[in-house]
Amino acid sequence: LHVPAHPDLGPKPQLGYVDSAIERVAERRGDHAWLEAAQADAGARAYVLGGEHIVLNKQGEALDPAFPLAQARALGKAAELVFLGLMQGAPRFGYGLDAATAAALKARPDLVVLDLRTIAAQGLVNAQHLPPLAEAKALLNWHARHRFCANCGAATRVSQGGWRRDCPACKAEHFPRTDPVVIMLAVDGDRCVLGRAARFVPNMWSCLAGFVEPGESVEDAVRREVREEVGLACGRVRYFASQPWPFPASLMIGCHAEARSTEIVVDRGELEDARWFDRAEVAAMLLRQHPQGLTTPPPVAIAHHIIRAWVEGEVDG
Amino acid sequence: LHVPAHPDLGPKPQLGYVDSAIERVAERRGDHAWLEAAQADAGARAYVLGGEHIVLNKQGEALDPAFPLAQARALGKAAELVFLGLMQGAPRFGYGLDAATAAALKARPDLVVLDLRTIAAQGLVNAQHLPPLAEAKALLNWHARHRFCANCGAATRVSQGGWRRDCPACKAEHFPRTDPVVIMLAVDGDRCVLGRAARFVPNMWSCLAGFVEPGESVEDAVRREVREEVGLACGRVRYFASQPWPFPASLMIGCHAEARSTEIVVDRGELEDARWFDRAEVAAMLLRQHPQGLTTPPPVAIAHHIIRAWVEGEVDG
Repeated sequence: LHVPAHPDLGPKPQLGYVDSAIERVAERRGDHAWLEAAQADAGARAYVLGGEHIVLNKQGEALDPAFPLAQARALGKAAELVFLGLMQGAPRFGYGLDAATAAALKARPDLVVLDLRTIAAQGLVNAQHLPPLAEAKALLNWHARHRFCANCGAATRVSQGGWRRDCPACKAEHFPRTDPVVIMLAVDGDRCVLGRAARFVPNMWSCLAGFVEPGESVEDAVRREVREEVGLACGRVRYFASQPWPFPASLMIGCHAEARSTEIVVDRGELEDARWFDRAEVAAMLLRQHPQGLTTPPPVAIAHHIIRAWVEGEVDG
Repeated sequence: LHVPAHPDLGPKPQLGYVDSAIERVAERRGDHAWLEAAQADAGARAYVLGGEHIVLNKQGEALDPAFPLAQARALGKAAELVFLGLMQGAPRFGYGLDAATAAALKARPDLVVLDLRTIAAQGLVNAQHLPPLAEAKALLNWHARHRFCANCGAATRVSQGGWRRDCPACKAEHFPRTDPVVIMLAVDGDRCVLGRAARFVPNMWSCLAGFVEPGESVEDAVRREVREEVGLACGRVRYFASQPWPFPASLMIGCHAEARSTEIVVDRGELEDARWFDRAEVAAMLLRQHPQGLTTPPPVAIAHHIIRAWVEGEVDG
């Protein structure tokens, strides 16, 4: 396989979950009458979720994740109904079933029930649905895991169209949680570090990643995670792009980092393996032409784009 | 006042809370015996906090925020002791008093009790202490507000040296929360948008900012916040830098955004005012030479650096 120093891998695929067409109209969230009217709007649609399950409507060959509200209600009682915003002027909601109810819908011949990673990676729905599905999933998962007040232990009540939970006892207000995660490619000239977690599909290698901790900048977190996971010191860190990642509620902050040491020591508690890859080998992985069948994550994930931008010479360490 | 197109404002001041000298040694957090020994280490030091109050030791003219552990314990019973990591090989802890106990220490002649914003803005302690103080404050504030399980309402127990709380009832594990915030300068050629919140000190104008919501990328959040707060559409968004901001637990993600419309409509619920400023006027503000005494935030805050980088021509929209 011949790969030039900075290969052109062809047209760039789309990153998933970004460039939302939803207008969130946050100023409407506290307007109860407006939200009631929005539910009654004939154009209103709801994404139906339960745990990791997304319910899709079979429309001939196509799969439609946006249900008329009456149809969503017929699928089961909502644990939570959240207002996502307006899409092309019409209200969109997230309709949260409990996970068991959603799973049971797999038996219905007119529906398909799948997890969001599969839907996104295989392009099973129009890409415009991915950002609101991410929004609905992150928000509904937060409700499912935050029905009690962390400050005093009392049961809380949903408010603001699903964007807040209020404690009737201590009056604390709780907001949905989003966890910033750094995901980075450590680079040393013409080679980079890829790792494998045990949970990955076989033969897939990816960027290192980890949660940003309290009291850390993005840049500090990148350096700490690379040091912890593979024992390398990093210098300059460059931001690349970001992506919401609703598994359950992360914000992926993609970076390239300049490696300033070379000896990899793998933290086997975090990773199954990690090693240096040269540019030609990674190009072969992106092109699905690697002799041992090694691959990178699919284009729906930001790791693909972080890796590809380096292979194509658009960034250095 | 004459200001050239791309003025050089002199040496760049330091951004606060970044470039931590703490080695977090996360692998030690679960090692109870090691943590016990670390507390007994003669070189161990603790930052003493209670709510917004930081306790400082008077050392002649200097103020030292790092107390020997025995001395910290003598100040009051800890609501929580958290392990921050190693600094120059010696253990550092956060020692959390309740807010009233910390406030009462203001009466002691050998101590000074101040809030972290004041300490940081006025440079009252060596800058190396700011990152661990941010780490301690964010972590201790999280404990203070999260003593109960959001999943089931039971009282939780601290574990992992302060980096986790475990629920004995439903077995849920809870991790410290960090809230990503976008903070951005919307730019249209030689002018930019600055706003004022009612809580700001008089005459100070700053970048717009807001929390990243579930299901949003950084770039989507920047465009939404600018549209919501001042009614402007934005195109390209460029990352600039980031900063932990422990008030109470934010990660500030600094950006420049290309404005694609020009008419400002201020959201008076969020802002007292917002308007276009040309480069010369902002340069005068940074130099503290504005004819009406308008100012920008101090260098400890990332807003200062976002604004200054644009004034100095280092970034465009």
